Amino acid sequence: MIVDTLIHARWIIPVEPESVTLEHHTLVIDGGRIVDLLPTGLARQKYQGLATENLENHALLPGLINCHTHAAMTLMRGIADDLHLMDWLQNHIWPLEQKWMSEAFVRDGTDLAIAEMIRGGTTCFNDMYFYPEVTAAQAIQHGIRAIVGLIVIDFPTVWASNTAEYIEKGLALHDQLRHQSLISAAFAPHAPYTVSDEALQKIRTLADELELPVHMHLHETLHEVEEAQKQNGRRPLQRLHELGLINPSFLGVHMTQLSGDEISLFAHTGAHIVHCPESNLKLASGFCPVAKCLAAGINVALGTDGPASNNDLDMFGEMRTAALLGKAVAGDASAVPAMTALRMATINGARALGLDNEIGSLSIGKSADVIAIDLSCLETQPLYCPVSQIVYAASRQQVTDLWVAGRCLLKQRQLTTINTADLKLKVAEWQQRLAS
Amino acid sequence: MIVDTLIHARWIIPVEPESVTLEHHTLVIDGGRIVDLLPTGLARQKYQGLATENLENHALLPGLINCHTHAAMTLMRGIADDLHLMDWLQNHIWPLEQKWMSEAFVRDGTDLAIAEMIRGGTTCFNDMYFYPEVTAAQAIQHGIRAIVGLIVIDFPTVWASNTAEYIEKGLALHDQLRHQSLISAAFAPHAPYTVSDEALQKIRTLADELELPVHMHLHETLHEVEEAQKQNGRRPLQRLHELGLINPSFLGVHMTQLSGDEISLFAHTGAHIVHCPESNLKLASGFCPVAKCLAAGINVALGTDGPASNNDLDMFGEMRTAALLGKAVAGDASAVPAMTALRMATINGARALGLDNEIGSLSIGKSADVIAIDLSCLETQPLYCPVSQIVYAASRQQVTDLWVAGRCLLKQRQLTTINTADLKLKVAEWQQRLAS
Repeated sequence: MIVDTLIHARWIIPVEPESVTLEHHTLVIDGGRIVDLLPTGLARQKYQGLATENLENHALLPGLINCHTHAAMTLMRGIADDLHLMDWLQNHIWPLEQKWMSEAFVRDGTDLAIAEMIRGGTTCFNDMYFYPEVTAAQAIQHGIRAIVGLIVIDFPTVWASNTAEYIEKGLALHDQLRHQSLISAAFAPHAPYTVSDEALQKIRTLADELELPVHMHLHETLHEVEEAQKQNGRRPLQRLHELGLINPSFLGVHMTQLSGDEISLFAHTGAHIVHCPESNLKLASGFCPVAKCLAAGINVALGTDGPASNNDLDMFGEMRTAALLGKAVAGDASAVPAMTALRMATINGARALGLDNEIGSLSIGKSADVIAIDLSCLETQPLYCPVSQIVYAASRQQVTDLWVAGRCLLKQRQLTTINTADLKLKVAEWQQRLAS
Repeated sequence: MIVDTLIHARWIIPVEPESVTLEHHTLVIDGGRIVDLLPTGLARQKYQGLATENLENHALLPGLINCHTHAAMTLMRGIADDLHLMDWLQNHIWPLEQKWMSEAFVRDGTDLAIAEMIRGGTTCFNDMYFYPEVTAAQAIQHGIRAIVGLIVIDFPTVWASNTAEYIEKGLALHDQLRHQSLISAAFAPHAPYTVSDEALQKIRTLADELELPVHMHLHETLHEVEEAQKQNGRRPLQRLHELGLINPSFLGVHMTQLSGDEISLFAHTGAHIVHCPESNLKLASGFCPVAKCLAAGINVALGTDGPASNNDLDMFGEMRTAALLGKAVAGDASAVPAMTALRMATINGARALGLDNEIGSLSIGKSADVIAIDLSCLETQPLYCPVSQIVYAASRQQVTDLWVAGRCLLKQRQLTTINTADLKLKVAEWQQRLAS
C-alpha cells in the first residue's frame, strides 16, 4: 500500500497510552494523518512511502504544544531584563509597544517566533497579542498550527479603541478562520484587572455560543490577588467563577496563587491551568503548586509566556523546569516525573485547547503533528530511558525534523517554509529601531 | 610582534572589570597566557598570530568553572530518576557503585564528563569521587583544568578501607600532582553525616599546612540538619565551625538550609558557597537563599552536581536556573541579574577554589581559559545585551571554541583531544553492564 510518509524510528513515544516506549517502530502518515503505527519489519512489508525517513538514533514524539505565548514579543527578547514587573511593563515594554506596535511588528516578530518554535519542536502555539489576524496569517504561511487569541482589554490600543471594537474585530477574525484546518481562535480577555465584568459576561455568552476556549492570565502574582480583594472584596478566581467563566473551556494562565479550596473548585469545574514556570521565576511571580493541582485532577498544560519574559520559546526547557521546580515546590523528588512533564507539554495542552481528538499524541486517526529527536549525542549518553533523557538531558537543538499535519516544516535542522537569511535581516532592522 | 594566538571577536566580556562588554576587540594569547586585550584595529597593527581566529558573530568569555561535580557518575545519567533521595541512593546509586566501581568506571565516566564539559564551555571542574588519581589522569590527558577531591568518608569502599587510608592515598596523590600546572587537589570530606570529628580535625590541620581547599556537602536538606540536631545537639554548620573548618579555604556545597545568623556567620568567616540549583530542585532538597547570601557578602559559586542528579553538566543551564530561581526565592525580579549569574559561573568559582589570580576573568596575565559563543542564531536574535542573551537565551550548543591555558580543546564544535566515536563505544558497553 502506498502512503505519503513512512518514518522508521529507533523509539516512538506516543504519549497515549501513557508510559509506552515502542522500539523499532514505524509511523505511517497519509493525507496529513497518522494511519498506522507498527513494528518496522511489518511496516516494510505492508507499506511503501512516497517519502521515507530512517531515523536510527531518534525518538519520535507528538509535537510540543505551547499553551501560552505572545509570539510577536520575540522582537523584544532581552531588551529589559532583571527589572521589577511594574518597572518592566510601565517603563519599558508598554512604551515600546505604544511606539512600535503595528502590523509589520507583529508580522516580523511572529515570523521569528515561529522559526524558533519549529526549530525547537513546537508544532502548535496558543497566542495572545494585538493584530491576531496577522499572527494567523503568518502561521498559515509557515504551516504551523496556532490558536490565535481574540484579545480583549479595557483600554484603547492601535488595534482597537474600546471593548466593543475588540470583540467585533475578534468575531470577524473568528469568522474568517472558519475554514482553516490548522488555525482556530480563542477568546483572550487579557486579565481580571484589565477587563470589566460587562465585557467578561459578553465573552462568556459568545464563547458558549461559538464553542471557543477562553484564554486568560489569572492569579499571576500575590499583588494581583491582593489588589482585587481590596477593590472587589473577592479574589479574581472567585469573581470569574461568579461570572460563569470557570468551566471546561477556560485556560487560566500562571495560577501561582491558589488556596486548597481554589484547587478543589478549579478541579471540580474542569477548567485548565497553563503553567509557565520560567516566566514565573524570572518575574518572581510566585510558585504554582503543580503537584497538588495534578493530584486534584486538574489538567495542567505548559507555556513559555512571551520571550520578553523568559527569554525563549523553548518547550524542552519548560518541560525540564516544570519537572524540577514541581518537585522542589512539592518537597518531593518523586513529584512531576518526566512522563508527566512530557504529557503536560503534549496531550494536556491538546486537552486544554479542546484539540485532544486532533493532536497531543501519536494515535491512529490524529493529525500527523510529529517531532524527531536525535538522542545519539554525548549529552544524552548513556541512554537508559528515552523519556528521562528527553526531559532531563536533551536540548531543543536535538530536534532534527518536524511535521505538522504531515507536512515537513523542519528537515535535518533546516526550516522548509521560512527563509532564515531574510528573517535575520528584518529582525536586525527592528533591533536598530527598538534600541534607538 | 609574533604571538601564539590572536582572537578577534565581535564582543569580549572579560567579567573583570564587571559590567564591561568590549566590542570589536582582540584577545592576545602567548605562552598559554593572556598578554593583551585591545581594539582589533590596533591588534592588527601590533601583533601577528601563529594562529588567528576571526569570530565575527561571537562573544568571548572566561571559561566556565563547575565548582561541584562527580564527573564519573555521568555513566549513571538517567538510570534512576524521579525518586526520593534515600530510595535513589540506597536502592539504585549505591548498589550500582558497589557492583561496578573501578578504575575503568572512573576513567570512562570521567572521559564522557570531560567531553560534555568541553562541548558546553566548561574549562575547569572541581570534582569529588573515588579514584581521584584516575580523574586527574584523564583531565591531564584531555587538557582540561581540574581540582580533584581527596575524598574522605567513614566507610570502606573499593578505593580505601578506612579514614586513615583515604587520607594517606589523598596525600600521596596531592604529592604526585605538585608539578602539574592545570591540576590541583582539594580535601573532599564527603558530608557532615559521613565524616567523624576526628577525621575532620585531621583534615583541617593538613589543609592548613598544605594550603588546600576543603570541599564538602553541607546543609543539603532539612533532614540532614534535623538528624544532626538530634544526634549532636547542633546544626552541622555549627559543628564544622567549632572544628575550625569554616574559613576562606572552605567550599560548602548546596547550603539550602541557612538561618539569618548562619548567613552572617558564613559571611564573616570568608567561606564560600557552591550553589547547585538544578540538583537541589531535582532532589527536592530545598532552596538556597542566594540573593541574601550575596547581599551579606558571601562569595557564591555554581556547580552542576553529578549528572546522575541533574542530569547534565551544563553550566549555561545552571547560570540560567540560578538567575531565575534566585529571583523567585527572593521574591524580587531584580535579584541575581544576568551579570551576577555569569560572575558566579566564572570569577566567583575561581575565588572559591583559590585560583582567582589564575582564572575566572579575561585579564592580562591570567591563564588563557577562554570560550567563544556564537550569538548569531535565531534563538539569540535580536541582540540588545550580550550578557542577558548569554544567560537567558543562549544554550551550550552555541559554544564553538574553547581554550585552556591557550590550548584549543574545541574547534568549531569539534573536540581536539577526545575521540568521540571511541568514547561512544565505551559508554555503550557501560550502559549494557549497568542496565543488566
